[in-house]
Amino acid sequence: MLTNATLKQLKKHILEGLFGIEKENLRVTQNGELALTPHPAIFGGKTANQFITTDFSESQVEIITPPLPSIEEAYDFLHTLHSVVSQEIGDELLWPQSLPPVLPDDSLIPIAKYGAESEFEIYRNTISETYGKQRQLICGIHFNVSLSDNFFKQLQEITGGTTAIATLKEEVYLKILRQSMTHRWMLVWMFGETPTAERNFKVKSLATGLDVPMKCGASISLRSGPLGYRNKKEYILDYYSLQKYNHCVSRLIEKGELSSTKELYPPVRMKFLEKDNGAPSYLELRFLDLSPLSVSGVNKSALYGSHILYLYSLLSQEKELFDGEAQHRATKRQDYISCFGRCPDRGFPEELAKAPTIAEEVELLLNDIYECLNDYGVWDNQNYKTAFEHMQFLAANPNQREGVKLFEATQNDNFMDFYLAQAKLAKKDAADNGFRFYGLTDMEMSTQLMLRAAICRGVGFKILDRKENFVELNRNGKIERVIQATKTSLDNYATVLAMENKVVTKKLLASDNIRVPRGGEYDDKASAKIDLPKYLGQPIVIKPKSTNFGIGITILKDKWSEENFQTGLDIAFSHDNTVLIEEFITGREFRFFVINDEVVGILHRVPANVMGDGIHTVRELIEQKNLDPRRGKNYHTPLEKIALGREEELFLQLQGYNFDSVIKDGEQLFLRENSNISTGGDSLDFTDSVHHSYKELAVKATKAVGAKITGADIMISNINEPATDNNHAIIEMNFNPALHIHCFPYEGKNRRINFKLLEALGY
Amino acid sequence: MLTNATLKQLKKHILEGLFGIEKENLRVTQNGELALTPHPAIFGGKTANQFITTDFSESQVEIITPPLPSIEEAYDFLHTLHSVVSQEIGDELLWPQSLPPVLPDDSLIPIAKYGAESEFEIYRNTISETYGKQRQLICGIHFNVSLSDNFFKQLQEITGGTTAIATLKEEVYLKILRQSMTHRWMLVWMFGETPTAERNFKVKSLATGLDVPMKCGASISLRSGPLGYRNKKEYILDYYSLQKYNHCVSRLIEKGELSSTKELYPPVRMKFLEKDNGAPSYLELRFLDLSPLSVSGVNKSALYGSHILYLYSLLSQEKELFDGEAQHRATKRQDYISCFGRCPDRGFPEELAKAPTIAEEVELLLNDIYECLNDYGVWDNQNYKTAFEHMQFLAANPNQREGVKLFEATQNDNFMDFYLAQAKLAKKDAADNGFRFYGLTDMEMSTQLMLRAAICRGVGFKILDRKENFVELNRNGKIERVIQATKTSLDNYATVLAMENKVVTKKLLASDNIRVPRGGEYDDKASAKIDLPKYLGQPIVIKPKSTNFGIGITILKDKWSEENFQTGLDIAFSHDNTVLIEEFITGREFRFFVINDEVVGILHRVPANVMGDGIHTVRELIEQKNLDPRRGKNYHTPLEKIALGREEELFLQLQGYNFDSVIKDGEQLFLRENSNISTGGDSLDFTDSVHHSYKELAVKATKAVGAKITGADIMISNINEPATDNNHAIIEMNFNPALHIHCFPYEGKNRRINFKLLEALGY
Repeated sequence: MLTNATLKQLKKHILEGLFGIEKENLRVTQNGELALTPHPAIFGGKTANQFITTDFSESQVEIITPPLPSIEEAYDFLHTLHSVVSQEIGDELLWPQSLPPVLPDDSLIPIAKYGAESEFEIYRNTISETYGKQRQLICGIHFNVSLSDNFFKQLQEITGGTTAIATLKEEVYLKILRQSMTHRWMLVWMFGETPTAERNFKVKSLATGLDVPMKCGASISLRSGPLGYRNKKEYILDYYSLQKYNHCVSRLIEKGELSSTKELYPPVRMKFLEKDNGAPSYLELRFLDLSPLSVSGVNKSALYGSHILYLYSLLSQEKELFDGEAQHRATKRQDYISCFGRCPDRGFPEELAKAPTIAEEVELLLNDIYECLNDYGVWDNQNYKTAFEHMQFLAANPNQREGVKLFEATQNDNFMDFYLAQAKLAKKDAADNGFRFYGLTDMEMSTQLMLRAAICRGVGFKILDRKENFVELNRNGKIERVIQATKTSLDNYATVLAMENKVVTKKLLASDNIRVPRGGEYDDKASAKIDLPKYLGQPIVIKPKSTNFGIGITILKDKWSEENFQTGLDIAFSHDNTVLIEEFITGREFRFFVINDEVVGILHRVPANVMGDGIHTVRELIEQKNLDPRRGKNYHTPLEKIALGREEELFLQLQGYNFDSVIKDGEQLFLRENSNISTGGDSLDFTDSVHHSYKELAVKATKAVGAKITGADIMISNINEPATDNNHAIIEMNFNPALHIHCFPYEGKNRRINFKLLEALGY
Repeated sequence: MLTNATLKQLKKHILEGLFGIEKENLRVTQNGELALTPHPAIFGGKTANQFITTDFSESQVEIITPPLPSIEEAYDFLHTLHSVVSQEIGDELLWPQSLPPVLPDDSLIPIAKYGAESEFEIYRNTISETYGKQRQLICGIHFNVSLSDNFFKQLQEITGGTTAIATLKEEVYLKILRQSMTHRWMLVWMFGETPTAERNFKVKSLATGLDVPMKCGASISLRSGPLGYRNKKEYILDYYSLQKYNHCVSRLIEKGELSSTKELYPPVRMKFLEKDNGAPSYLELRFLDLSPLSVSGVNKSALYGSHILYLYSLLSQEKELFDGEAQHRATKRQDYISCFGRCPDRGFPEELAKAPTIAEEVELLLNDIYECLNDYGVWDNQNYKTAFEHMQFLAANPNQREGVKLFEATQNDNFMDFYLAQAKLAKKDAADNGFRFYGLTDMEMSTQLMLRAAICRGVGFKILDRKENFVELNRNGKIERVIQATKTSLDNYATVLAMENKVVTKKLLASDNIRVPRGGEYDDKASAKIDLPKYLGQPIVIKPKSTNFGIGITILKDKWSEENFQTGLDIAFSHDNTVLIEEFITGREFRFFVINDEVVGILHRVPANVMGDGIHTVRELIEQKNLDPRRGKNYHTPLEKIALGREEELFLQLQGYNFDSVIKDGEQLFLRENSNISTGGDSLDFTDSVHHSYKELAVKATKAVGAKITGADIMISNINEPATDNNHAIIEMNFNPALHIHCFPYEGKNRRINFKLLEALGY
C-alpha cells in the first residue's frame, strides 16, 4: 500500500502530528545522595497527576508532557515541568544524568509507594527482582510521536478510500517501527549521553544474575549498551502484522518471560490509546539519554533528530526484510555503538558494516535521509533544517557530541562533582525563571504563574484566546475557565461590576461602615464647582469615575487654587462623563490580596531606587540592580529594569544628582516619583508585618462587595497601629489583581498565590 | 421649646423628609361590579409584599410606596404601582372613586383572606361587625410625612444640644398634629372628591346601627362626613404629651371602645417605627379621597397641599389650646365642609366661623400660610410655589375643584357610567405605559421593566448608580445586585467573558458540536490576505473581534472583489486588533432569550416599514404608525418612531417611491435596510412558532458557555424545519440581552421575561 508513488503524495501533512515527552530524574540531596524522602505531596496522588508522578523508585520523578502539536511546544512544556519540579522539591536536586549517583545499600533504595496491595507496587517489586533495583534507577527520555488525522485521511483518499484508517495506521506505524529500529544506532551514536558511570555503580547481569560494575570503555551510551536498561533477553517479534506482533508478545507473557506488555523494553514501541480501538496510536522512541548539559534535561536537537529518523523510516524504501536476523543485527549495531561509539574512526564489525568507519556509515545514512526528506520539503522548515545541519556538524565533528564532552568532564573521578554542579546550575535556572511558562512567555505573568501551579497540581489546560489570556483548566473533567488568572467563575458578574464601579464600591463599603475616602460624584464641571468651597483648603484627589492605571487623576495636596481645581476637572472629564472628588488620604498604599475571605498577600510598592555605597556611581548602581534576573523589559518578568532615561535624569537633577554621582553609603536614592513596577519600582512583601486589624478589614470589605477574589488597596498611616476611623481608608477593590507581584516580590517571600488561586478553583 | 426664634433658624432642612403614600382601590369587573376573585397570586403573600396587599376586603387592593425623599418620587412610585396592579389584574379594573360601586349583598362582600386563625382576619371580622362592610369598602389615601434627621439634629443644636431627639420628635410631631387637625377642613374643602355616592350605597349608621343611604346634599366629601369612614364615637385625646396620648388610647382599648390602636381612625395619626423606640416617626395624613380624574388615583396638588399645611402647622404660632372643645370644633368644621363644601358662599355656623363665607375663611388661611412659609423660602421651590398657586386658584375659582367637577359629571344617575369610564381610561393608560417606571424613565427600559416586576413581587430596591442602571434588590434581606437588568450574580465572570469573546464562544460551541459560522481569526491584514483564496467566491462577513452593535462589520455577499475584501479588512482592523472572517450564513436572525435553561422568548426584527392601503401616502402611513404609544424617541419606549429623514427618502427612491407615493393595498414597503429597532424597525415575537429543535439548540449552547442568562442569536433558514448542519448557525451569545423587546414586541405577546428574570434571581 505504501508505495513510493503513494508516499510522494503525502507531503502536505507530513510534519503534522502530536509530540509528547516523558522524562525521569532521580531526586538527590545537595550532596548528590539519593533522596529518601517521599514524592512531594504538592504533586498530589501519583496516579492523579497526569504530568508529574514517580517511575520505579519513590525517589524517581517522572514528568510527562501532554501530546502537543510541535516539538517546540513539547520541549517548552517539558522545560516548564522540569522547572516546576525543581522548584517544588525544596533543597533537593534533580539528578541530571541517566546513570545514578552514589547509591545507598540496595535495601535502602525505595520502591515507589502506591500501597502494598496496589498492582503498581506489585509490578515494581517483580521487576526489581528480575532486573535489580540499580538498573531500574537508570533514567531516560521517551519521545512519543504520532502522525496527524489529516495525514491518515489523506492517505486513505490517495489509496482509494476503502482501506480502514486502523489498517493504515497499522501499516504506517509498523513500517516506521521496523526502519527506526534498524537505523537507531545512529541516534545513539550522535546523542548518547552516558559515556561514564559512577565508579561504584553496579547492575545485575542479565546473564549471570550477579552484580557487575558498569565500566565505560569507549562507550557513548552505557544506558543503551548490554548492561543498560533492557530486557533480560533479546525477543524476536513479528513487526509486519499487528496481529502477529500481539501474538508474539502474548506468547512471551504466557511463557512467563514477561510479567506484562509494559515489561517489554524495546528501543521503539507501539502504543495504543483507547480511542483507536486496537490500532496503534503512536510510537514511543526510547533511545534518548538525559542531557546533563541542558537545563531541562533534554537535548532539543536529539528530539528533532529522532523525528527526522522517524520520517525517514516512513518515507524511505525498505531495503531488507526485518526478520529475526535483521532485528538481531540492529541490536548488535546498537550495542556496538554503545560500547565503542566514542571512536568514530572505528568501523562496525564486518558482518554489520556498510562502510569502513562509523563516521562514514553516519555520513552515508545522513545523505540518504537528506535526499529522502528533501522531496517532502522538510528542509523548508527552519527548525528541521537547523536540526539536520547540527546532525551533519556532529557527524563531521564527532568530538562535539555531548557524550564526548561528558566523558571528558567526568574524567579523574569527577563524575559526582560534575553532575552535582550541573544539577545545581539547573536548580538555579529554575529559581531564576520560576515565573516563566516556557512557550507561553508572551502571556501575562499572572497567567504563566497560574499555569505553572496548574501543571504542578496535575491540572491540564487549553488556551482559548492567547492574547486575552483566556484558558480552560481541566482535571478529570472538572473544567474552569480563567481569564488573566483572576477573572474566574468564583466571582459573579454583578460583583465584578460593583468593584469596577468606584462609586458603587464606595457605597457598598460605606454602608458596611468601612472607611472610604469622603467626597462627591459629579456629572459635569458646573456641579463640581458648586462644591468647591467644601474642598478648598484640604488635600483632594480629582479622578475619572472608571479609568484605571492612574490615568486622568489629579492630586491637589496643599495650597491649591481654584485654577488647579478647574484644570483637574478638565483632565478628569476628558476621560469620563462622571468624575469623583475625594479627600486625599495620607499614608502608604498597600495591596491586600484576598481569596475566599483570607488575606494571602500584602504588598507595598516603592519607586525605582538604588542604595548608595559611597563607591559606585548611580549609573553603576542601576546597572548592578538591573542584573537581577527578575528584572526585565515589557512586563515579561516580575520586576522591570530601572531605565537610565530622561525622566530619571530630571528626577535626579531635582535632587542635585546625575547618573555619575556617587551616593553615600546606606542612602536610598529614588529615581522616580511614581511607584509603578513598570517603571522600575520595587515590590515589598508586608504580609507578615501589617497589623491584623487591616487584614480583618480587607476581608470585611471583600464580603461587603461579595467578592471571592479581590485586591483591596488600603491607605495606611501606620502599619503597626490598629485601624481606626482616622488612620486609613480603602481606596479601591480590584477584581483583577496581579498574582506575580506577591509571588516574586523584590523583597520578601513567595506567597504562592497561584497555588491558593487553584485551590480556590477546586484543584 | 419651639419658640418663634427657634423655628426661624430651621429653614435649611425644612423641606427635607420622607414621603410615603398608601392608597386603596376596589377591584371591579368590566361592568363595575365588585370583583369576587382572590387577590392575584402574582403579588405573593399579603403580608410578604411590602408594596401591594389587601385592605379590609379581598377585593380591596392596597398599594404602599416606600418612604421616599420627595413628593415627586413618592407620587411617581405610586403611579407605577397603580400601573403595575392595573396590568396584573387581567380584565378587572381599579375602581377610581373612594366610594364603592354597586355592591353585591353584604354577605357576598369578601373579607380579605389570611386564614381563619390569623389575627388579620379576626380583626377584619371584628371591624366588619362594628362598622359594617360597606363602610370598610370606602377607600382613601394615606400620606405619610416625616421631617429629616438633619432637621432634628439642627433643632437639637439650636436648642442647646441637651434635649434628646426623641423628645424633640414628640414635641414637633404633636404640634403638627394639633394644628393640622385644626386646619384640615381646608384640605377637605379643596381636595374632597366624594361629592356623590352610588344611589343604592348605604352604610351602617354609627349612631343607630341601621343601614342608611349615603346622600349627597351639598357635599364635597361624603367620605369625610358623618357617615364616612370614621370611628363610631369622637374620641377626645391629649395631644400635648405622648405619654398622655398613649394613656388615652390605652384606656379606650381597656374599655372595649377600640379593639386595638389600629382601629383609631383620626384624620391625622402619629406612627411609630421600631428604630425610634417609642418616639413618633412620622405623621399619617388620612383626609385625602381618591382622585378619579388622575390616572394614578392621586391628585398631586393635594399631596403638596397637605405638605404645605403640615409645614404651616409646624411653623405657625398656635392660636388656641387644642383641648376637647377645640378638637370637637375641628371635627364639626370637617363635618360641615364635608356636607356643605360645594357651596363656597355659605359660611360656617356662627360658633365655628372666622369669616362670613367659607371662601373667605379659605382666603384668610391661605394668606397666613403664604406669609408664614415665605419666611422659610418654601416658595423658592418651584413645585411648592406652583402647588400653592393652584390652591389660590381653587380658592378663587371653587367650581374648578375636582369635587365640584365630579358632582357635575355624576348627575343624572351617571355615577357608575362615569367612574367606569374613568377606570377604563386609567386601565388603558397602564396598558399603554406598561413599560415605564415613572420617575425612573431616564433608566434603560430593561431596568424599568425589571423594577416593575420587582415591586409587583414585593421586592424593594435601591439605585446604586443610576446612569449605569446599577440597582440593588432586596426582599427580606435577600439582596441581589443587578446591572442593566441582565448583568446579575447568576452568571459568573468567566462565563460572561466567554460570551463577550466571539472567538472563545465559537470554540466552546463548536466543541459541543453546535453549528457556528466557519472561518478564521486574524491578527493582521497580511495573514488574512493569505487566506483570501479560501473565501473568494462565497459570501462572507468581516468583523472586528469584540465590538458590538454591528460596528465595523462588512458583509460581502456576491461577486465581491479583492478590493472589497481589503476595504472590509481596513474597516474591521480600525476597530480591533483581531478580526474575524466568517462564512455569511443565510436565513433570518432570531434572538432566543434563555433563562435557566429555558427559552423564554424568541424574537425577530424587521426594518422600518409601512403597509400600503391604496389610499394613504407613505408619509401618512408613517405618521399613523407612529401614533402607537409604544413608539417614541431616544429609546424611552419599546419601539422607535419611523423617521421621515434623508435615509428613508433615499431608500424609497431606490424603490421608485417618495413620501407622497400611495402604496397598493396590502403591500409592505420598507423604509430602511437595517432591522434595528432604534431606526424604527418592528419586533416580532416568534416564541410559539419556531421549530422546537432550535429551542433545544439554544439551551444546549447556553450550557456550552455555562450561562444562566443569555440571548442566543441564531440564523435560521426555515423556522418550520428542524435544525440540521446546513440550515442554521449560532452567530452570537449575548450576555446582556434586552428584556423589553420580548415584553413589548410590535407583534405578539408580552413574554414577561422581567418576571422570569426575577424568579431566576430567587424572588
